[in-house]
Amino acid sequence: FLYFIAFQRKVLSVSHQTVSVLASEAFSHLVPRVNACHGMSVDASSDGRDPSVPSVPPPSVAAVDEVLAQKAPLALTPCAVVDVSAMRHNIEQVAANLRPLNIQLRPHLKTVKSVKIARMLTGDPAGAPITVSSLAEAEYFFKHGGYTDILYAVAFAAPKARFVKPLHDAGLRLKVVVEHPVAAAQLVAACERFDVAVDVLIEIDCGDARGGLSLVRDGGHTRLLAIARELAQGGPRTTLVGVMTHGGHSYRSRTVAAIRAACEDERVAAVTAAEALRRAGHRITIVSAGSTPTVVHFAKVDGLTELRAGVYVFHDLDQLGIGSCRSAQNIALSVLTTVIGHSTNGRVIIDAGGLALSKDVSAAKHGAGMAAGYGWVVGHDDLCVAALSQEHGQIDFKRGGGADDEKHASLFKRLPIGSRVRILPNHACFTAAAYDGYVAVDPRAKTVEVWPRVNFWFDGNATGNPDRLRNIVGPPATSKL
Amino acid sequence: FLYFIAFQRKVLSVSHQTVSVLASEAFSHLVPRVNACHGMSVDASSDGRDPSVPSVPPPSVAAVDEVLAQKAPLALTPCAVVDVSAMRHNIEQVAANLRPLNIQLRPHLKTVKSVKIARMLTGDPAGAPITVSSLAEAEYFFKHGGYTDILYAVAFAAPKARFVKPLHDAGLRLKVVVEHPVAAAQLVAACERFDVAVDVLIEIDCGDARGGLSLVRDGGHTRLLAIARELAQGGPRTTLVGVMTHGGHSYRSRTVAAIRAACEDERVAAVTAAEALRRAGHRITIVSAGSTPTVVHFAKVDGLTELRAGVYVFHDLDQLGIGSCRSAQNIALSVLTTVIGHSTNGRVIIDAGGLALSKDVSAAKHGAGMAAGYGWVVGHDDLCVAALSQEHGQIDFKRGGGADDEKHASLFKRLPIGSRVRILPNHACFTAAAYDGYVAVDPRAKTVEVWPRVNFWFDGNATGNPDRLRNIVGPPATSKL
Repeated sequence: FLYFIAFQRKVLSVSHQTVSVLASEAFSHLVPRVNACHGMSVDASSDGRDPSVPSVPPPSVAAVDEVLAQKAPLALTPCAVVDVSAMRHNIEQVAANLRPLNIQLRPHLKTVKSVKIARMLTGDPAGAPITVSSLAEAEYFFKHGGYTDILYAVAFAAPKARFVKPLHDAGLRLKVVVEHPVAAAQLVAACERFDVAVDVLIEIDCGDARGGLSLVRDGGHTRLLAIARELAQGGPRTTLVGVMTHGGHSYRSRTVAAIRAACEDERVAAVTAAEALRRAGHRITIVSAGSTPTVVHFAKVDGLTELRAGVYVFHDLDQLGIGSCRSAQNIALSVLTTVIGHSTNGRVIIDAGGLALSKDVSAAKHGAGMAAGYGWVVGHDDLCVAALSQEHGQIDFKRGGGADDEKHASLFKRLPIGSRVRILPNHACFTAAAYDGYVAVDPRAKTVEVWPRVNFWFDGNATGNPDRLRNIVGPPATSKL
Repeated sequence: FLYFIAFQRKVLSVSHQTVSVLASEAFSHLVPRVNACHGMSVDASSDGRDPSVPSVPPPSVAAVDEVLAQKAPLALTPCAVVDVSAMRHNIEQVAANLRPLNIQLRPHLKTVKSVKIARMLTGDPAGAPITVSSLAEAEYFFKHGGYTDILYAVAFAAPKARFVKPLHDAGLRLKVVVEHPVAAAQLVAACERFDVAVDVLIEIDCGDARGGLSLVRDGGHTRLLAIARELAQGGPRTTLVGVMTHGGHSYRSRTVAAIRAACEDERVAAVTAAEALRRAGHRITIVSAGSTPTVVHFAKVDGLTELRAGVYVFHDLDQLGIGSCRSAQNIALSVLTTVIGHSTNGRVIIDAGGLALSKDVSAAKHGAGMAAGYGWVVGHDDLCVAALSQEHGQIDFKRGGGADDEKHASLFKRLPIGSRVRILPNHACFTAAAYDGYVAVDPRAKTVEVWPRVNFWFDGNATGNPDRLRNIVGPPATSKL
């Protein structure tokens, strides 16, 4: 620590410039500017958003920077930082919302992809229902997390049964999704071929038109029952257990009324499908709906057995724009980055580029008021990441710096070469996917830990083993398998 | 193989629908439609582009699908496919362009991030110069590839010296980049602190304003010499060896004349800086420039010692739009994906979403003529990926399908549930980064191999080891280090 101060002093004496690095004496400057982050909350009163979404956690922003400076002053940038305090708050908030509804949450782990965080969501994994978005996640949470009630919530492509086989043999009966009679027939054939048994949910489209069978068009009810018949004919390897829907259109909602309508779209679609299947003699035990925007606004859950949501654990600028949370302080994920340059057009260059932040600009569609660019700069309400290349990011004024040289000179003073800032993401799922682990900062316990996460579609945590990676192409067609 | 046909037949008999899967009998349908890919070339004659960029490789598109169907019919989708034939062609093309100029290529491996491909670019790694964009890449190519002349071409943040230390102790003298006197002073201090020696290049901005010191503004020449002095005062741990520039503004060029102007911008900026440093008594041996758009158009290299470029190894829709290659068949990277749904709004749903393709839409800026969406569908000139969520992609007509139900019904027939297609990426660097390995298809040798690649900023191939991952936060500030 003393060495680090000496290091700083040497830099100061050599460069004859003020150098602010996120550590030691530079830290004192951080407190006032990160507190300014309060100002980044979206005004919830003027746009019809629900004041019942409070979600302002204890102000841990400055505390996060303090712990980082003390415990990880040399952390390699860019890295993904999780504010454990804000995350716990987000988790508790949704749990509290659902408690009076008396409905099970099946958290979607596609965002966090971390066993450590999954355990915070579920407690004991034995019997705890979870949702995943890839087979790599299914394997990871089963083998490393002890989860056995896993829904792989992307319509299943039959050849993937080959990759389910080792999980099946290890004791996992995976829940998979189909939405078309042809897919159901392919699933039946593949489960026979690979000697795999799965539980099946039929995906219903309730308005997003991304995936799922629509009940209101193209003979949807007929197709729904055709799927159930295909599965039943397949025997015990493909047991129909439920229906699911995802109110993805809630992401396009701009008022609480619209989101509440999406909640009801989800509920009606799922329950209608379940009832139709039950009338045809099928035993339906899971009626599943959900999305982060809807999960914080559900008022009526009659007929549903569970809700799914995931990105709320971190939140992001997109969710802030939608109104799923009310303050930038709820955003538990950020990217720590170092200022590596001052460009000739007045921008601050950081070592977090498109690979580190993702090129998702979802928050931009919430209008100029968000002025999100590729992310907000924590503690600098007027700044955003305005441009990206692969490993370079460019910080500029949200409203543009124009040709005002003085303004840019002040920007360079605020963010000198070598200083560190954190960037809030537009879309946490995409930004988190750029990292194989989180730098988890607990501002209360004053600890910094690293938590691994899974990536890719084939157990990304096992890539050190080329033989394993080779398996993704499978045996040649001439094999006896 | 026979089993697979039986598998198909069962599906056919059960579903009473035509099912096309990329294998066995379905394969015969692929040949005509993938040949249609020829039509996807951008017309080079009408827009002033250089007819001297031929680059149409042997038509291997259908052959790639054939080998995939034969050798990897069950490959887990989404996966990244490399057409080894097209890639070899791209590599040879640039090598041939540079041969008469008699200039060294320092390939930028930030795109491919694969030792296997690096060796195809350089042959013997001993003494072969390469460029990387992260310390993870530097470590990977040094330890697993045997490369020792490595330029880390992103302005260096001083605390990263801690991560250079183990490489240094293993025998690597890394080349790093600075662009500011303060950064130079911080580098000197960090190299002293961690007992590391590096060679240093000064980055010059030649028009992109992303990184680098501009010689034409803000007393650039004075700052250039100030950097050199800081480094010299630092002693033998920070040896100034050269200058580098990147003509990133070439990406905004829309004519060959504009790209040629960017070539000359690069050359003049780098050579002017080198000469100024030499006049001040510094020994400058590396004068480095380059980008994929410029590297195929360089005519005059006087004073330069090397060129850098990387994405040309794969090419992508963005480079096709810029004119770095002339046909979609030059694009050696694609994403193999499975049709998992037919949406209620008439779109084909695939299991490659934003994580699998990236949300980079760089090719979109080349105008409606490109109609790139999030990628082109190989063999279907009229289709693109029109929308993405995390794990779902939506294929639609490039010009939009509108409300024409018949048109959409024909689309569903062309891409039935369970069929497989490949998607050409907008930006190969970003799409490739979604995978920890390539499914490398050599249509001549009729082989399929899996080649690992590195990701992240801290040796992504080693993430199976939590202890190693933990190192990214470094020792606590109180450590004696």
